[in-house]
Amino acid sequence: MKTIFDELDPIFHPRSVAIIGASAKPGKVGRLFMDSFIYSGFREVYPVNPGNREILGLPAYPSVLSIPYPVDMAIVVTPTAAALPAVRECVAKGVRTIVINTAGFAESGDEGKALQEEMAATVRAGGARIIGPNCIGVYCPASRLPFLLKPGMTPGAVGLVSQSGFFADHLTQLATANGIAFSKAVSCGNECDLNATDFLRYLGEDPDTRTIVAYLEGIKDGRTFYDAAREVSLKKPIILLRGGLTEGGARAAVSHTGALAGARAVWGGVVRHAGIIAVRSFEEVLDCLYAFHLQPLPKGNRIGIISGPGGIAVTTTDACLEMGMSVPQFSQATAGKLRASMPLVGGSVANPIDLSLASILGPHVHRDAARILLEEKNVDMVLVISAIEAEPLRDLMLEAAGGRGAEAEKPIAAVVMTGGSDPSGHDCRLLIDAGIPAYPDALRAAKALFRMAEYGRFKKRATEEMTRITRKSRATGRRPAGRADAARQARAIIEKAAGEGRRRLSGHESVQLLRAYAIPVAREVEVHSLRRLRQACAEIGFPVAIKAAWPDASHKTDRGLVRLDVRTMREALAAFTRIAGARKGIWGPVLVQEMVGGSRELIAGLISDPQFGPCVMVGMGGVFSEVVADRSFRAAPVDAAEALDMIGELERRAVLGPFRGMPACDLKKVADLVVRLGTIGCDHPDIAEIDINPLIVSGAVPIAVDAIIALGKRQASAGRP
Amino acid sequence: MKTIFDELDPIFHPRSVAIIGASAKPGKVGRLFMDSFIYSGFREVYPVNPGNREILGLPAYPSVLSIPYPVDMAIVVTPTAAALPAVRECVAKGVRTIVINTAGFAESGDEGKALQEEMAATVRAGGARIIGPNCIGVYCPASRLPFLLKPGMTPGAVGLVSQSGFFADHLTQLATANGIAFSKAVSCGNECDLNATDFLRYLGEDPDTRTIVAYLEGIKDGRTFYDAAREVSLKKPIILLRGGLTEGGARAAVSHTGALAGARAVWGGVVRHAGIIAVRSFEEVLDCLYAFHLQPLPKGNRIGIISGPGGIAVTTTDACLEMGMSVPQFSQATAGKLRASMPLVGGSVANPIDLSLASILGPHVHRDAARILLEEKNVDMVLVISAIEAEPLRDLMLEAAGGRGAEAEKPIAAVVMTGGSDPSGHDCRLLIDAGIPAYPDALRAAKALFRMAEYGRFKKRATEEMTRITRKSRATGRRPAGRADAARQARAIIEKAAGEGRRRLSGHESVQLLRAYAIPVAREVEVHSLRRLRQACAEIGFPVAIKAAWPDASHKTDRGLVRLDVRTMREALAAFTRIAGARKGIWGPVLVQEMVGGSRELIAGLISDPQFGPCVMVGMGGVFSEVVADRSFRAAPVDAAEALDMIGELERRAVLGPFRGMPACDLKKVADLVVRLGTIGCDHPDIAEIDINPLIVSGAVPIAVDAIIALGKRQASAGRP
Repeated sequence: MKTIFDELDPIFHPRSVAIIGASAKPGKVGRLFMDSFIYSGFREVYPVNPGNREILGLPAYPSVLSIPYPVDMAIVVTPTAAALPAVRECVAKGVRTIVINTAGFAESGDEGKALQEEMAATVRAGGARIIGPNCIGVYCPASRLPFLLKPGMTPGAVGLVSQSGFFADHLTQLATANGIAFSKAVSCGNECDLNATDFLRYLGEDPDTRTIVAYLEGIKDGRTFYDAAREVSLKKPIILLRGGLTEGGARAAVSHTGALAGARAVWGGVVRHAGIIAVRSFEEVLDCLYAFHLQPLPKGNRIGIISGPGGIAVTTTDACLEMGMSVPQFSQATAGKLRASMPLVGGSVANPIDLSLASILGPHVHRDAARILLEEKNVDMVLVISAIEAEPLRDLMLEAAGGRGAEAEKPIAAVVMTGGSDPSGHDCRLLIDAGIPAYPDALRAAKALFRMAEYGRFKKRATEEMTRITRKSRATGRRPAGRADAARQARAIIEKAAGEGRRRLSGHESVQLLRAYAIPVAREVEVHSLRRLRQACAEIGFPVAIKAAWPDASHKTDRGLVRLDVRTMREALAAFTRIAGARKGIWGPVLVQEMVGGSRELIAGLISDPQFGPCVMVGMGGVFSEVVADRSFRAAPVDAAEALDMIGELERRAVLGPFRGMPACDLKKVADLVVRLGTIGCDHPDIAEIDINPLIVSGAVPIAVDAIIALGKRQASAGRP
Repeated sequence: MKTIFDELDPIFHPRSVAIIGASAKPGKVGRLFMDSFIYSGFREVYPVNPGNREILGLPAYPSVLSIPYPVDMAIVVTPTAAALPAVRECVAKGVRTIVINTAGFAESGDEGKALQEEMAATVRAGGARIIGPNCIGVYCPASRLPFLLKPGMTPGAVGLVSQSGFFADHLTQLATANGIAFSKAVSCGNECDLNATDFLRYLGEDPDTRTIVAYLEGIKDGRTFYDAAREVSLKKPIILLRGGLTEGGARAAVSHTGALAGARAVWGGVVRHAGIIAVRSFEEVLDCLYAFHLQPLPKGNRIGIISGPGGIAVTTTDACLEMGMSVPQFSQATAGKLRASMPLVGGSVANPIDLSLASILGPHVHRDAARILLEEKNVDMVLVISAIEAEPLRDLMLEAAGGRGAEAEKPIAAVVMTGGSDPSGHDCRLLIDAGIPAYPDALRAAKALFRMAEYGRFKKRATEEMTRITRKSRATGRRPAGRADAARQARAIIEKAAGEGRRRLSGHESVQLLRAYAIPVAREVEVHSLRRLRQACAEIGFPVAIKAAWPDASHKTDRGLVRLDVRTMREALAAFTRIAGARKGIWGPVLVQEMVGGSRELIAGLISDPQFGPCVMVGMGGVFSEVVADRSFRAAPVDAAEALDMIGELERRAVLGPFRGMPACDLKKVADLVVRLGTIGCDHPDIAEIDINPLIVSGAVPIAVDAIIALGKRQASAGRP
């Protein structure tokens, strides 16, 4: 079978390129492309323009069909109306890759969208592939293939995929200028054919690519993207800037590439689960890129800080602790070594190390302290903040790191606060060029290191999970028998409701379905008569709750269809009569349920996200959970560790700890419940929504007290088995 | 009366300076100071060093006493042990300002602290002032007075005060290199005599200073600092970086300047209330400085974004919305003008404006769009994100701003994403030098504009408040009569408890005190007998709550000393007997209280903060409020608008809106209650703590249901009257 690598790799290595709409006229995009190809030294360039015989010294052709040589790639820079005919000619010519720079398609409205779809249909029939429209193309220094503007032509090991042409262009230029070069970069624009996920998968397999950077606005098939991102993240870091996450941003994004952004909360969970390094600004992309590309991952989150400037050491320590890093005490051996190597007055050998003014008078203390911390067992990464000149700092850092190669154990980063007239950009460049990520500001450096620690943790855990899954599937070769039984029982419940034309299971059916998957639910009996009511009360034992149980009974509490804490048979009979009688035309049914006590409430659920398919949710419950959302999402399936992480993300999670005589909530049991919800979502893609509310923490144990399950359209299975 | 300005201004204009510990030896701090003074061109410098007759061409003296001329300022750069004798000699010589660079004092331990205190005592007796120890001194370009290292010597209008020498030095160098020059800067180190607040007040009055920058770790007298900061903020922005806000940071801060950081939550409230622009990193200080110093304040929070790069426009819009800015639609007139001036393909004239690739081919669109938005009534500030070269961008921006002077109406900022090999620092500098704040990253630019909008809002409101207070005090000339009555009643309650040796008022006394200040409290009657119980129940009407009412009854709920929802006289008698009988040795007393219904709970209170004196608090209540704090603090007194802001800061404030049939909570009533708590704190500085918990939202109205008031030591009145 052809891999995505085999399929897309030729795109980055064309032997010949036609520029359709090439021009010699300054100020024209056709001229910019010509300039770039001439500048890059690409050899077989064929300008196409019906009005010219020659463009900038190269023979020009009236159409791509009149080029007497084979053409691997065409770049279309024509007006919007001329693009489709050009694509048709390319297909006729046998061009394999068509890059469409021309804009005015899906991002401009329905007419443009139709045109774009016709172009896609044309190549689908003809076997070619389109990149764009509304993009700046493909960049591969090793093939001397340039972007629209002029990036460097040194090959490197960073891969880039971007839905914004400017992002692609600017990032490659800035990083290259700092000595971080690229393997491949692609600007995929409106994605009428090939999309960002295709290129992400390609870069994941590409042996020339070690670190990936991406800019995305909308994602067309969220589940495919998610699966690809998670797989790639296990091998290489993906640093991602995403636009269009707010309504206003999405409005701008629509005009920009014609794609809609997904729901934000779900996106946040997907990003974490897939191990993506999500950043907030262009600058943060570069900040992370330098750290991830140049340094090994830290093994934990303990940072050692060495600082000349004392005040900056203080604010940086504050920032590290707030992010969730640890700024640990050093071992006695390290403290002794530091004391022996450092002048005492005004400084401090605790963490953060304050080198004081002595660091300017005797800069070698930077090296000595860094060398000592790189060997300190209580520290996973080292941050050096310095006020000395960048050149001596670089040399001292290289000396401190000794002969550390790619196998070096701990990452190190530097903050260059030289001041004076030398712009810090140049100063940092000196260090970055030498392999030391360097920043003009300590907070940015600390953040980059923190992101590495987070990613290191993801990678370690995801790798363990993969090993476990592999081992398990080797052991059993198929789904566990219990799960097959559960799926069968659940299917019967779903089919019954579907057969009756219902889109919603009754409360009792919902609970039965959850119980089939061993989710802890409150004991309950559905009753239609006074006789069964008496039996049920006796079976369950007072106090009980009595609730309406017909399928369309929503907002039960508000409508008086729930009676809690029923303590006697007399109260039970009264409640039954009132509630069962409230249904129009029919009597009941009514649920008798054990009263689950506990003042802490969670919610949990499953949604079928339009982008990412089945996604699980867990959150803080209670009557106000609707107005103050405190929830965490993940694309299903999740394992127990991931589910615990979801709980760990809740802002009010402290409520689940031991508190005023209440025991700590058994988080493993909550996590297990979330895992099971994910399994249900993967087994039954036609479930649109599960809402367990409340999930009461009774003593230490979560118990589902009320549940709603809604069905949607039957979809293809989305989750991994 | 001598103002702080008269008192401190001479420090910045010495006619002669002695450098005690001066040296010609490279690598010595005494040499660095000599170099700086020679470089700055300061005329009357007298090196003092007993071992030299001449230093770097200047006659040297064995001691400050042997200088045959008057000495206005001495800089002490001796070893630690020699500093105190030097200070004594300075006092004998009549030196008015003694800058002590020498370290090894309070930051090093008790011995150093004692030494430092002795120096302070020495000058107090002799009429001189000390700056430091452990500082780099005073910088005033107009007087050619330099810092330790070599900053520029152009006078400007930024004032700086810093507890970190490096911060002072580095910031003045970087800003000066970007064309932002300083009026005065001072590094105040350990502050054994003059402190940061003194200099803040000085800079507030200094006519040469328009914008203030500060770095602080610990603040010695929080209330004085707070009052000074609030007063200065009304006139000039204070951009403040504070270190030591986490425990780890404070640990580092102790070794750095020997001062402890205050409690963080209180600090956050004080910062907001005083209108301080609190930032998180060194870079953010500069980012804000450029915007505040170069541009007028925006009149609101509506931003217009103009962008060449489309993707960056999208992420910037996201960021602006998340910060709380508005990215509004343009008026029809503006949309028309934009459409007329912009090429259509690939771009968008909605907000954010996407100039598309056309902005590179025809850069003038930057100017045209900016000019149009500066006149758009729906927009308060303009952000231009550009990928063109900095020089043409600067010229276009200057053209767009037209002849705007200091009275220009809207702030404008630029993001320079030129790329290529030119470091962005240099590019931004070109614009900053021309008066346009410029940033290499759009998020940083947006943040700086947002901070201006926040400060503009503070200034407007604080000015209104000042006008109101002035008008009121002119009208009455004294406290309102009601308040005097309330204070008298409260004092009687406090004195009674104090007279009985109690540090804590009973629940009933607490409620009475609150009621004296017209704080809404639940109706309640204190009863000691069954007869009074019956009466009380009849008066209040069932249901009632019955609670233990003796002063030391804490954790009442946990100890079974509260019975809620008592519905009959029989239940009331049983509850009374159990609760009143639970007190050791004595019978009761017990409170009978109306049952206040409502599922929404707040907490409110007052603390006597060790740094800031009386501070009010409001927060979300409920049983879990202890583990998940959601609270806002302010130094008392506060006005209603400020109290509303406190409520607006609560994360879960949405709970107070209309919800499931409950009306919206009357926030004005909550705010009024907080204002009254502040009044109590100012009237009675000996109240250590007031804790209203719960403050139940009953219907729309907050009612205090339980309160604790604790007394502390009697202190001098801290609040404004």
